[in-house]
Amino acid sequence: MKIISNKLVFIMFFVIIGGFLFVDHSPAQTPGNAVPAPSNVRGAQYPQITPDSRAIFRIKAPEAQKVQLDLAKKYDMVKDSEGVWQVTTDSLTEGFHYYSLIIDGVAVADPASETFYGMGRMASGIEVPFAGDDYYAVKDVPHGEIRIKRYYSTVLKEWRQFYIYTPPGYNTNINEKYPVLYILHGGGEDERGWATQGKTDLILDNLIAAKKAAPMLIVMPDGNVKASGFGENTLQLFAEELKQSLIPFVEKNYRAKTDAQNRALAGLSMGGLQTLYAGINNIDLFAYLGVFSSGWIQPMQKELADAQYVLMQKNTDTINSNLKQFWLAMGGKEDIAWNNCQLLIAKLDEMKIKYTYSEYPGGHTWPVWRNNLLNFAPLLFQ
Amino acid sequence: MKIISNKLVFIMFFVIIGGFLFVDHSPAQTPGNAVPAPSNVRGAQYPQITPDSRAIFRIKAPEAQKVQLDLAKKYDMVKDSEGVWQVTTDSLTEGFHYYSLIIDGVAVADPASETFYGMGRMASGIEVPFAGDDYYAVKDVPHGEIRIKRYYSTVLKEWRQFYIYTPPGYNTNINEKYPVLYILHGGGEDERGWATQGKTDLILDNLIAAKKAAPMLIVMPDGNVKASGFGENTLQLFAEELKQSLIPFVEKNYRAKTDAQNRALAGLSMGGLQTLYAGINNIDLFAYLGVFSSGWIQPMQKELADAQYVLMQKNTDTINSNLKQFWLAMGGKEDIAWNNCQLLIAKLDEMKIKYTYSEYPGGHTWPVWRNNLLNFAPLLFQ
Repeated sequence: MKIISNKLVFIMFFVIIGGFLFVDHSPAQTPGNAVPAPSNVRGAQYPQITPDSRAIFRIKAPEAQKVQLDLAKKYDMVKDSEGVWQVTTDSLTEGFHYYSLIIDGVAVADPASETFYGMGRMASGIEVPFAGDDYYAVKDVPHGEIRIKRYYSTVLKEWRQFYIYTPPGYNTNINEKYPVLYILHGGGEDERGWATQGKTDLILDNLIAAKKAAPMLIVMPDGNVKASGFGENTLQLFAEELKQSLIPFVEKNYRAKTDAQNRALAGLSMGGLQTLYAGINNIDLFAYLGVFSSGWIQPMQKELADAQYVLMQKNTDTINSNLKQFWLAMGGKEDIAWNNCQLLIAKLDEMKIKYTYSEYPGGHTWPVWRNNLLNFAPLLFQ
Repeated sequence: MKIISNKLVFIMFFVIIGGFLFVDHSPAQTPGNAVPAPSNVRGAQYPQITPDSRAIFRIKAPEAQKVQLDLAKKYDMVKDSEGVWQVTTDSLTEGFHYYSLIIDGVAVADPASETFYGMGRMASGIEVPFAGDDYYAVKDVPHGEIRIKRYYSTVLKEWRQFYIYTPPGYNTNINEKYPVLYILHGGGEDERGWATQGKTDLILDNLIAAKKAAPMLIVMPDGNVKASGFGENTLQLFAEELKQSLIPFVEKNYRAKTDAQNRALAGLSMGGLQTLYAGINNIDLFAYLGVFSSGWIQPMQKELADAQYVLMQKNTDTINSNLKQFWLAMGGKEDIAWNNCQLLIAKLDEMKIKYTYSEYPGGHTWPVWRNNLLNFAPLLFQ
């Protein structure tokens, strides 16, 4: 049959999907070698990334008075005669960045990009390719699965869900049991964070294929509990949920090894605090702790931190003998948790608690946490 | 320790998650019995649903000149003295609706709602509870899993992914093989559609628990192929991908029964056309076909449709004997595919091809397709 005009079919039949009209799917017209970002929705020509890692954003908004891009730094966008606003950013750092468009004062997601639950809402994300991003590329290696599983929390008395990575071979090696890493997202995020922003499955698929990490299950829980804030009541409630509800459910429903030597706990930012709290209060439960871009918030959490240090001081020997890794990572001095982490380290030194400190530049951002997973996972269960 | 002010901690530490500021998390102030919609992002107080199924939308946009809600019908929102725009809709029909906010002429997602890939972008969705929505409620029944699986398409020569529902018991009944339903999304959607908008896992968990449907695998492929439009080349390419790449991969990697009696294919709208094309061209492959809100697009696809009818006419006996169900469903007269479907039915009658026709009001929308799955799944593999 003759080729049917895509546009005409849409108008006649798929009236419902009128949203296509708001995303520019036409071929790129920008000179130079800029290419659509990998994080664009299917077929969207913008945002684009230039060879020197600048990003070009566009949106058609003839009636808007002012349009800005908020990508850590705010950029004013400029309108052309057709009502299309555009801006080219400075050179961007590697990997994933949350961003918003601010249309006449309202911060919204860019219709041309995928959205990610972060900052307490569905926010736009842009991926900036870089020379070292091969570690989370989709390669011709065996691939595990990401699974979404619902469970009833006996602690929180509600249905919740977690994401779980099962490594290649999990479906066929039916007599094999696997060690488990529980990994926690940050504030304003949820159980989707490590699976999408974190690229957990690809990082592990590649590490396992290269024999750099042991095949393991990675559980990505929802770290949000009903109580609000970062007070001890919230941390305690999450620790109870983890210990009494989630871990028993995982160990009952997946082929998990169930001793401390085969259990690890890690988290970023808010998840790092949850790891510190749940990990130190249950030192018999985990042989590995990973604290990414975190540390007790000073002076806000001074009392809580002091109580934790008293507990640690009492159990220094147990902590040092039980933990095979107490791994602290920081996104360089530009990480907003830098000071808190340095205070934590000073205390650990004072108490002679063993730890490994690691730094990767990039601040309090997902590119750093992806790199943290890349470096932490190989230390586990070996 | 003392309770820490959530706000203060955010300001001091989680500066990065400034997006919270744009979503109203404060307690609802509207009089009456309106409650936050189930589709809101965590903690967002608006949109709200009233007891008579109206929805109240709010957004703070003091600098905007005009804000509208686009929810099939367009509503003008009204600004109060604090710059908050609000509107209360007419009474809404049941279940899931895509919607946009139009801020000074730009259609964007509402920061207060979850987003869903539909209309070719990440669009807002709102869930309207209704008396009969129990069939996709999260109940205290055994729950299956939704898995996300990457695979290399030998037809399309690229890495792709599908979602797959594995029923309760799949992980423990390791010697059991399962029948498979392949179910296809509509135009402007992707492999996420049936898992999120469609609530496939909950519908099946509940049906299986009530012994109304056989435990089955449900594969939710990405129906988009590189070629654009709804021409035969596109339909043919997808059919090849399905037959030569996806089905063999699924049958190799999951415990699937591999005969036609245990294979079903269904789809909505564009997915219905793919089902008609791939199903009739591979009549030995599937014992069940489900065509939801679809039918050859007239007059656009006349030539293609005529060729298909010639093929059907030649194989009437085979079609009638091979297909245990040829199930056509329509969202009432308000479905934009109504006419096309009636033309298809007339042709089937003329050719004496057996089929089952089913109607559920609601138009060309997800509430209809959820209901289609509810009614189609029990007909399969019995």
